[in-house]
Amino acid sequence: MINFQISPDQYKHWKLSFEGSVARLTMDVQEDETLGDGYKLKLNSYDLGVDIELADAIQRIRFEHPEVRAVVITSLKPRIFCAGANIYMLGTSSHAFKVNFCKFTNETRCAIEDDSRASGRRYIAALNGTASGGGYELAIACDEIYLVDDGNSAVSLPEVPLLGVLPGTGGLTRLVDKRKVRRDRADVFSTLAEGLKGKRAKEWGLIDDTFTTTKFQSSIDDRVAQIVNLRSDEAAQDNILRYNGGIKLNPLEIQSTDDSCDYRYVSLQFHRDKRYVDLLVRAPEANLPTATKEIQKLGDDYWPLRAYRELDDALLHLRVNEPEVGLVCIRSEGSIDNVLAFDKTLTANRDHWLIREIVLQMARVLRRLDLTAKSFFSIIEPGSCFAGNLFELVLASDRSYMLNNPDETVAVALSELNTGAFPMSNGLTRLQSRFLAEPKKAYEAFAHEGPFDTEAAETAGLVTFAPDDLDWDDEIRVAIEERTSLSPDALTGMEASLRFAGPETMDTKIYGRLTAWQNWIFQRPNAVGPNGALTNYGKPTQAQFDYKRT
Amino acid sequence: MINFQISPDQYKHWKLSFEGSVARLTMDVQEDETLGDGYKLKLNSYDLGVDIELADAIQRIRFEHPEVRAVVITSLKPRIFCAGANIYMLGTSSHAFKVNFCKFTNETRCAIEDDSRASGRRYIAALNGTASGGGYELAIACDEIYLVDDGNSAVSLPEVPLLGVLPGTGGLTRLVDKRKVRRDRADVFSTLAEGLKGKRAKEWGLIDDTFTTTKFQSSIDDRVAQIVNLRSDEAAQDNILRYNGGIKLNPLEIQSTDDSCDYRYVSLQFHRDKRYVDLLVRAPEANLPTATKEIQKLGDDYWPLRAYRELDDALLHLRVNEPEVGLVCIRSEGSIDNVLAFDKTLTANRDHWLIREIVLQMARVLRRLDLTAKSFFSIIEPGSCFAGNLFELVLASDRSYMLNNPDETVAVALSELNTGAFPMSNGLTRLQSRFLAEPKKAYEAFAHEGPFDTEAAETAGLVTFAPDDLDWDDEIRVAIEERTSLSPDALTGMEASLRFAGPETMDTKIYGRLTAWQNWIFQRPNAVGPNGALTNYGKPTQAQFDYKRT
Repeated sequence: MINFQISPDQYKHWKLSFEGSVARLTMDVQEDETLGDGYKLKLNSYDLGVDIELADAIQRIRFEHPEVRAVVITSLKPRIFCAGANIYMLGTSSHAFKVNFCKFTNETRCAIEDDSRASGRRYIAALNGTASGGGYELAIACDEIYLVDDGNSAVSLPEVPLLGVLPGTGGLTRLVDKRKVRRDRADVFSTLAEGLKGKRAKEWGLIDDTFTTTKFQSSIDDRVAQIVNLRSDEAAQDNILRYNGGIKLNPLEIQSTDDSCDYRYVSLQFHRDKRYVDLLVRAPEANLPTATKEIQKLGDDYWPLRAYRELDDALLHLRVNEPEVGLVCIRSEGSIDNVLAFDKTLTANRDHWLIREIVLQMARVLRRLDLTAKSFFSIIEPGSCFAGNLFELVLASDRSYMLNNPDETVAVALSELNTGAFPMSNGLTRLQSRFLAEPKKAYEAFAHEGPFDTEAAETAGLVTFAPDDLDWDDEIRVAIEERTSLSPDALTGMEASLRFAGPETMDTKIYGRLTAWQNWIFQRPNAVGPNGALTNYGKPTQAQFDYKRT
Repeated sequence: MINFQISPDQYKHWKLSFEGSVARLTMDVQEDETLGDGYKLKLNSYDLGVDIELADAIQRIRFEHPEVRAVVITSLKPRIFCAGANIYMLGTSSHAFKVNFCKFTNETRCAIEDDSRASGRRYIAALNGTASGGGYELAIACDEIYLVDDGNSAVSLPEVPLLGVLPGTGGLTRLVDKRKVRRDRADVFSTLAEGLKGKRAKEWGLIDDTFTTTKFQSSIDDRVAQIVNLRSDEAAQDNILRYNGGIKLNPLEIQSTDDSCDYRYVSLQFHRDKRYVDLLVRAPEANLPTATKEIQKLGDDYWPLRAYRELDDALLHLRVNEPEVGLVCIRSEGSIDNVLAFDKTLTANRDHWLIREIVLQMARVLRRLDLTAKSFFSIIEPGSCFAGNLFELVLASDRSYMLNNPDETVAVALSELNTGAFPMSNGLTRLQSRFLAEPKKAYEAFAHEGPFDTEAAETAGLVTFAPDDLDWDDEIRVAIEERTSLSPDALTGMEASLRFAGPETMDTKIYGRLTAWQNWIFQRPNAVGPNGALTNYGKPTQAQFDYKRT
């Protein structure tokens, strides 16, 4: 079982240090500390374990060190920044694991960009040596890239020429869409195993600047000082300095049995013989603080942060450790009023750094759900509390079922947070995505006073089906049975196509276009067959291609 | 060898008839007239041969019957409109063929939408019976969909529940992006083998209206009459009525040997042992007419129409009949001045229906090139004529090489047509896509007086490499060798990611996101393995899935 929880004292591959408003993330991968067997993490190459640490570090910078304005990512290895994902790990992994590995590393890189965009921290890739493949892809997720000019170090994406696969962590998309490298130059660069060194790399826009070995460290320091000075002026103008030192992210407490996982606010109940799981989210307790000072004191015990961290961990667990579970039935339990009270507090204090970070984290978790290759059904029954932020779970689901029983109240509700706090990867809110054909239905739903009962929710278009109590059990049972009987591959492709209507962004391109092509290639004999390039990498045998173009 | 050329007198599966400004395209697929062996085209199901006729018919309506304002697509079979792509054909086809089949059918449906959007013809899908799978996808490519309400007929996308694959012709994308069907309803519809009948189909936005059997024909006629009346008003206002009866599209003349294909203006020279082909486009003769009346008299002998129809046929031939050819070296021959003179004539007369159709056809051919899964290198040498419309070939190439020899003039040039006449699928011009990072470079290039010599072209960013004559032969040879040695699958995925930077449209979503997922699924054992759903369709055996979600 792969565990996604970690803390800096357990890091094996990264050093995270702080100096004033600068964080340093230094990569020093320990060859033998691998997550799986049969490979060594040479030359700062990485496996999922290395990336779990990186994801954790970025999260901790945001919550534990909000004073940080610049993050420098560099390496402790001489002449090498990072060699990318470990090829032998990829070569020996199952198709499903490769796909999930790439998805997680993509989410980590998008989390860097989210921090930069939403919280204004500037990420500097200080390439003290060669950055190849995923190493360059990590750099290109940063805001600025500086490469040492030592006559040897280069940036490269050698996947196509050496491995017969694509750079799998957004590299191709970021090359032409983020750095806007000319497509013919991107073509040359992406087929050049040795990559490009400082001068030409800068000319082509692959890096921002290059410095000689002797001047490298001081140039990075200068640039960082510049950023920090600039940012502290900005910071003084808003209320970003009221940090009081950040809050600590403590480990989640999980109680597991064979067929359940219980967090404080989230529970998983497995029905593995039927290939589905019930995911229950519990509403917050009443009477929680509304003042930011007290919220900060509560720290990671505060419901929105705790519950969504738990949800995030549950989703990752389901993806990687429960591949045969194809359907997640989302349920909720508790008081709608309490959930709405939280949303009110979050809305009122969105300028406070901690509240902002909490809302951004909730948004990232919801996007993780959108990108999870499982079906989601929301089941809305008496006692459920799909309101405001939790109603996003209904909107993120592939379908929703809401009981229609005149004798029992079932309700859902919207809050201010549904109007923009939780953008999908396509940049729209989930309500906008839902009502592309009739945008006014989103406004009408907001104009509605108080919670919606089942009929009102159905009329407003907020739920898919509203069976009455006579049909309810059968309808849910049949829906689950039907869904879990379908081809899991076809469902994955279908959901990836239906969930993201409307505009595309760099993120959706990475998860849709690039990932889908990579998944295709990850299955082709030219990559993974006995004569494939990935299979034969590093062996005395050479790849033999079937040259038919499809 | 599959031949993409056809004319209505050879049609086996479609009837094309005209009545005033209405065209009727009636599907009546002949079961035994298949392109391949081992399947029968029952229930108006189709194979590539059926779609080649449809693509031809749409093209002919535009050129031969420009007076047409409404196109009605319907079926001659009782109670069935179209059952979609033939499953047994798909089940017995190679992966490469399936992929190319879907790409062509997608291009045909996009051509319907191009005609509607750019030339204002309104396409009416008159579903006189059930439209399932590709049948409904054909309907959804039309502007309006009407379904008979006979208690039985339905629209459906049964691919996911019955076959374990995706609807492969844009259905999922058009469902949520064109018709903007709510995503949860799209989810239900796409997993419901039997589909939805009239009333609910209308309520969910899957069709525009439904009429009882007795009223069906008259309701369609009324709607068509309404369109035609409305459109003739519009037409009277512009110059769209100066048709003089359209022009005839005659068969292309092709002379083939074992290693060459010669059209009038296009030649293919195969180097199959080296897995590449030289594609030469010859410039038009001088002294061609500039008046529309004389151009119309020339008809399909007019260079821009003839040369691009030839180019289109050559691209389709390369895709389907030459799978092992991975690289196309585009060359040109002739006078730059002549090409630019043509562009001037086309630009000056873009309001004339024939010129508009010719330019739109050129744009479609160039988009076909963008979407071709082969590498393209443009080779620019003395005597070449990459100017104006032909310079789009350079911009569409993955790279370009331009000889730099002070003793010989090599030149490229831009024309007015490069500023918007040939949009890519992403809606941008190829120059805009090229200069995403520095949009002003596109303007600077246009401000340049006269043709560019090699150094000017390189400085302007119009070509990738400009080797001198000492290096030229070696550099081209090595570039070709290197390119054709790489994994063809990785190149396909790489090119699909690098060619379409910037915005995404419904078209790019269909060719990028949806197609890539479908290609992935088309390889998965759950679809095509011995126990896969596609393999076992219609057999007494049932599909057995590996339920692991990836």
